Amino acid sequence: LVVADGPLKVRFAAGDVGAWRIEQLSPVRGESLAPAPHLSIEEGRPVEAGNSVWALSGVISNLRYTTAIEVAALRAAQAPLGRPAATCAALIPIRKSESWWALPQDERRRIYEEQSYHTTIGLKYLPAIARRLHHGRDLGEPFDFLTWFEFAPEHAQLFEDLVGVLRESPEWTFVEREVDLRLSRRH
Amino acid sequence: LVVADGPLKVRFAAGDVGAWRIEQLSPVRGESLAPAPHLSIEEGRPVEAGNSVWALSGVISNLRYTTAIEVAALRAAQAPLGRPAATCAALIPIRKSESWWALPQDERRRIYEEQSYHTTIGLKYLPAIARRLHHGRDLGEPFDFLTWFEFAPEHAQLFEDLVGVLRESPEWTFVEREVDLRLSRRH
Repeated sequence: LVVADGPLKVRFAAGDVGAWRIEQLSPVRGESLAPAPHLSIEEGRPVEAGNSVWALSGVISNLRYTTAIEVAALRAAQAPLGRPAATCAALIPIRKSESWWALPQDERRRIYEEQSYHTTIGLKYLPAIARRLHHGRDLGEPFDFLTWFEFAPEHAQLFEDLVGVLRESPEWTFVEREVDLRLSRRH
Repeated sequence: LVVADGPLKVRFAAGDVGAWRIEQLSPVRGESLAPAPHLSIEEGRPVEAGNSVWALSGVISNLRYTTAIEVAALRAAQAPLGRPAATCAALIPIRKSESWWALPQDERRRIYEEQSYHTTIGLKYLPAIARRLHHGRDLGEPFDFLTWFEFAPEHAQLFEDLVGVLRESPEWTFVEREVDLRLSRRH
């Protein structure tokens, strides 16, 4: 991990190399991504544009909707990335519609939490499902969000529940592109 | 104006060319910027890294704090850039502290509006002072915000009042770097 001044930039590159093996790559909504055998994750700026099938970038930035009370609850339950038992992962790139981004802050917050329980749902699956969010919209990236999840194989069904519940939420009606990648690494 | 897919990237380049003449460049807090005679403004991606003394970039992105009621009030009072009489401008690059960015969303909102009246104050100076905000933090830029203002010469004192009031606000205690550029162009 590079100590960055400001948000840390993370690049997910699909190709022949990388610590994570891509087990499954499924379009959920809109255009898919090209298949590739491996995924590598590079942290810090600048990142090299290497020899990859595709590469997506995002920054770990400030919280956009989470309140002080929710931050406290998340911190109490949080799980780090890189746990030895967490050999399963998912990368879910999402782009939301222009109508989402045109909403005022309070309306986006209301849909996100008061109607869709986004943080409340994520919290319920902690510490089993570790999660890290990367923002790509201001970077001109094809996806607004790249969410990375890590969990142990015995929590794979829990993870299905989590994404299933979120995809049924009012917030998800604003998702216009979504791809779902499942990955694994050796112990 | 280039029609962009997602946030529009804007680059402010200081050097020998540009529609705006830099009349004054003053450090308000922290390190200043190098002096230069002109400023050019380039909109859209990709932007060329030309021959400039310095260049700062930001994106016109979604609202971060503004509520639906505030959006309605701002829309009713708004003023566009490029008005023929608005031959004065200001560019105010700002970086906030890490302690600001570490705050939860509701605490940042409370300081921004309920304690500092940021939107309320800006609204009071519309339509005389037109304003456009550019976000640089997720881009890894040296400044989190580049705010661009345009006004007629007879509103120059109004503009002094506006920046004076904001700099006295609780929100400004989180500003760790600020530069103030004043500019002019011909009719």
